[in-house]
Amino acid sequence: MSSSAPSFAEDLAREGARVEAMLDRLLAPPALPGEAVRPERLRAAMAHATLGGGKRLRPFLTIAAAAMFGAEGEGVVRAAAALEMVHCYSLVHDDLPQMDDDDLRRGRPTVHRAFDEATAILAGDALLTLAFDTMADPATHADGAVRAELVLRLARASGIGGMVGGQVLDLAAEGRWSADGRAEALDDAAIRRLQAMKTGALLRFPLEAGAMLAGASAEDVARLGRFGAIVGLAFQIADDLLDVEASAEAMGKATGKDAARGKGTLVALHGVAAMKAELERLVVAASDELAPYGARAARLTAAARFVAERQS
Amino acid sequence: MSSSAPSFAEDLAREGARVEAMLDRLLAPPALPGEAVRPERLRAAMAHATLGGGKRLRPFLTIAAAAMFGAEGEGVVRAAAALEMVHCYSLVHDDLPQMDDDDLRRGRPTVHRAFDEATAILAGDALLTLAFDTMADPATHADGAVRAELVLRLARASGIGGMVGGQVLDLAAEGRWSADGRAEALDDAAIRRLQAMKTGALLRFPLEAGAMLAGASAEDVARLGRFGAIVGLAFQIADDLLDVEASAEAMGKATGKDAARGKGTLVALHGVAAMKAELERLVVAASDELAPYGARAARLTAAARFVAERQS
Repeated sequence: MSSSAPSFAEDLAREGARVEAMLDRLLAPPALPGEAVRPERLRAAMAHATLGGGKRLRPFLTIAAAAMFGAEGEGVVRAAAALEMVHCYSLVHDDLPQMDDDDLRRGRPTVHRAFDEATAILAGDALLTLAFDTMADPATHADGAVRAELVLRLARASGIGGMVGGQVLDLAAEGRWSADGRAEALDDAAIRRLQAMKTGALLRFPLEAGAMLAGASAEDVARLGRFGAIVGLAFQIADDLLDVEASAEAMGKATGKDAARGKGTLVALHGVAAMKAELERLVVAASDELAPYGARAARLTAAARFVAERQS
Repeated sequence: MSSSAPSFAEDLAREGARVEAMLDRLLAPPALPGEAVRPERLRAAMAHATLGGGKRLRPFLTIAAAAMFGAEGEGVVRAAAALEMVHCYSLVHDDLPQMDDDDLRRGRPTVHRAFDEATAILAGDALLTLAFDTMADPATHADGAVRAELVLRLARASGIGGMVGGQVLDLAAEGRWSADGRAEALDDAAIRRLQAMKTGALLRFPLEAGAMLAGASAEDVARLGRFGAIVGLAFQIADDLLDVEASAEAMGKATGKDAARGKGTLVALHGVAAMKAELERLVVAASDELAPYGARAARLTAAARFVAERQS
């Protein structure tokens, strides 16, 4: 191994491998205390949804944030795997024919294509449940109050006022429930709110979680949260730019779907050039937010740049 | 009001009204801290799924168990409402066309009929998430370790090794994934395991939760759990008997479906008379389990009898 600092890509890949191993371990047991048996078909569908793909960006943010405040080890990786399960469950349900109707995810068949719709619905339900199970387990953190607060914040980020609510706003914006089935034209503020809920909340939470796991101050948790909100916005703008510019092959999923659905994005509203400039501004703002931590924040500021510049 | 002790039906109705009011309150706010907005369509679907129906048996068990150990008040009702949300979400998802395909629930259209399938899937997801949110909130119990343990046990009862896993076993038993689409013949042990997961786990948990909320000893929590397991078995046998004997009108949902699906039940395996006798034995066994608490256990033993004798 070289003695030079690893690139961000190497850092992300290494932490991703730890998260993958943890996810595999959390899905593997035949049954935990309080459980009867784990039906194999359901376990296999949950594994299909969570293992063997994904950049593991959200878990990375938790691990890097915790490390910045001095916390390493299994509990942090467990929490990171838990929130990744919530991300993965949301993809399984969003891909369903009743929702976004996608056949391909991370270059592989979506869960309802590889299995069937009933199994996909139940695998999503069980993943969401296992996420809270994992977060609440004493193995994740010694302090029950911290575990309960992590559960609470994860639920707020991913429920009716967060991710799930954002998906409802997204379907509504696509005209799903309008009388004439046509998309509504959202303004800048409405698009930002939708995106802050649908994708932003589950990018902000990992950073707060990392700080909380390390016992950081409320001020530090709030600062990491603000950094996470900026990263979330950058992530979504980059995603919308990729939908316009990247190929389905590079993305491992269908692209060009936003325009096809008349979907309101900031890119559609303000144009590609303006949003590329906005992305650059966000990377600087993210870095500024973490300035008090100096060089300790290098992994997180590298993550913000990666999010803005990713090509898939 | 009469000075005589209320009947069980009155007791159940009174606690049910408290739970209903709490569910309404938990669904009502425009947004909690950590949330953006709560989309009205989603909130309405969640309200349709949770309000205005149901016996509230599970919440009653929590409230009565907590009261037996001296705990009353809002935190107990919050926890009771949280686990009722898990029950309600499971009904929403189980009723979907991809699952049991039911149009009627509690005498009203199911959520996907009153709204649409996408909304039903998301309302279920958001209810499950709000359940964990509610359980983890400091307003539910002052001790974070208790809240985290409640989250953990609720997750175990309702996830891959509990309720969701039981639904998978149930669909499998109906022949959903068999090569010829025919139902498998389950033996006594397999039926009991399936039912312990699908319905039993979420009838046992409310009793453990009530004892935990009241700070009861581990021994008492375990005893209440054993009582709950008996109640769960009685509940399922009564349900299977009602499916054979009751009218759809009395039940507010389709009946006779088990036989139509070739579904393995203990009633189908052993006959109506044998299972009615088994029910009587279970009521006695449930009562015996709580004998150490004497008259304090009267509400819970009445609940066990109610479960066995209910006509809808």
